[in-house]
Amino acid sequence: MENPKNRLEVCLSPALYSKHADDSNLVVIVDILRATSSICAAIHNGVKRIIPVSTVEEAREMKTMGYMVASERDGYVLDFADFGNSPFNFTPELVQGREIVYSTTNGTRCIHMASHSKAVVIGSFLNISALAEWLIGQDAPVLIFCASWKDRFSLEDTVYAGALAERLLKSEKFESICDAVTASIDLWHLAKTDLFGYIQKAAQKGRLASKGLDDCIAYCLIPDQTSVIPAFRDGSLVDISPQVQSVRQ
Amino acid sequence: MENPKNRLEVCLSPALYSKHADDSNLVVIVDILRATSSICAAIHNGVKRIIPVSTVEEAREMKTMGYMVASERDGYVLDFADFGNSPFNFTPELVQGREIVYSTTNGTRCIHMASHSKAVVIGSFLNISALAEWLIGQDAPVLIFCASWKDRFSLEDTVYAGALAERLLKSEKFESICDAVTASIDLWHLAKTDLFGYIQKAAQKGRLASKGLDDCIAYCLIPDQTSVIPAFRDGSLVDISPQVQSVRQ
Repeated sequence: MENPKNRLEVCLSPALYSKHADDSNLVVIVDILRATSSICAAIHNGVKRIIPVSTVEEAREMKTMGYMVASERDGYVLDFADFGNSPFNFTPELVQGREIVYSTTNGTRCIHMASHSKAVVIGSFLNISALAEWLIGQDAPVLIFCASWKDRFSLEDTVYAGALAERLLKSEKFESICDAVTASIDLWHLAKTDLFGYIQKAAQKGRLASKGLDDCIAYCLIPDQTSVIPAFRDGSLVDISPQVQSVRQ
Repeated sequence: MENPKNRLEVCLSPALYSKHADDSNLVVIVDILRATSSICAAIHNGVKRIIPVSTVEEAREMKTMGYMVASERDGYVLDFADFGNSPFNFTPELVQGREIVYSTTNGTRCIHMASHSKAVVIGSFLNISALAEWLIGQDAPVLIFCASWKDRFSLEDTVYAGALAERLLKSEKFESICDAVTASIDLWHLAKTDLFGYIQKAAQKGRLASKGLDDCIAYCLIPDQTSVIPAFRDGSLVDISPQVQSVRQ
């Protein structure tokens, strides 16, 4: 007999999370511009673990405890921080083997909201194929959770949700009756032939551009730059990809 | 000097409403399958006013006060009600000149949530052109508010939001930096050449079909069947279209 398929849903905003929450979910946190892209880049470049924090105050306190800190507000790197929140900051020379505190309001909130789940992992275009393969192998329901911006619907996170949802449904291990899955896949199909051009329409693009922080957008849209799978374990984000597991064993 | 353009936003779920709420908004309530389509049909067929209520208990109480009542739960017309919530129920023979209580959980909640606004009006494909023209003439910001289903994202309401948003932006009286406007217009473009076919993908279609209530879907997607503009005034929905105004004057 065929195995029953697992549920696939997309949550378009933290304000909608309570409608999707389920302890059995594998939850994929998505904040394409820029938190989850930066986290994938940092782990790929050798960061040992990332501690996500919500507030500048937490980041400052962690700095005094000796951590490297990535923290900015309104586009300015904070005076106590080692660098800002762009994925370009986390070069191997700077971050190899380090523990880094990463200050991200929306991303941290979503990670903590979903921490009751079976697993909380970090999704971006940078690791999309590795993540899809890992999710398909887990035999559990998946919720793709768009961090969005201040609870509003976010175009770039939704388009990514569609790209990932399509890969999961193609595996035939998942099924969906969620309208947000349908809409996000349709938007991904519209966007994918010129993803950079499509994302020009996103409000977050304008927010970053107005602060000169849009230099990383093209980079954040390039798929499969890494096979890391950052997961939230015991308060921090660590790589749980099969490669790491086999090294550990 | 050119007049400044008015803000246009789309709210994809009641759970997101607080991010869009503004006293200056004209708010368009959208619940295509079936509440706002039924309300437009009823007013078109001569209902004098509609009193929206959230609960079966309120509907029952209003029945004892002598009102005609449209009320169903889980697809069954309630024993005390005159009829259910389908737009097909409100025939001119039955409803001309009457005051009707309409029980709709999602729709009533949205109407009351938005009642602080400059105006609350009812949108559906049935009255889309008349409503667009009226909104363009008001010189005020517009929020298209998808009632959705239990706070979840709803495909059919979003597609309608895109159809209406596109008409408003084409007037050049509005501007938008809202990603939900962008996404809903893109989904409308995908859907419009075969709207009925596209809506087959919506979860609400399945919910109605499972109860044999999907006979009205095609009807709910036919544009411009009426020029009524139901608006919420003093606790009930009445027609405020220019035709009515000129008769009254």
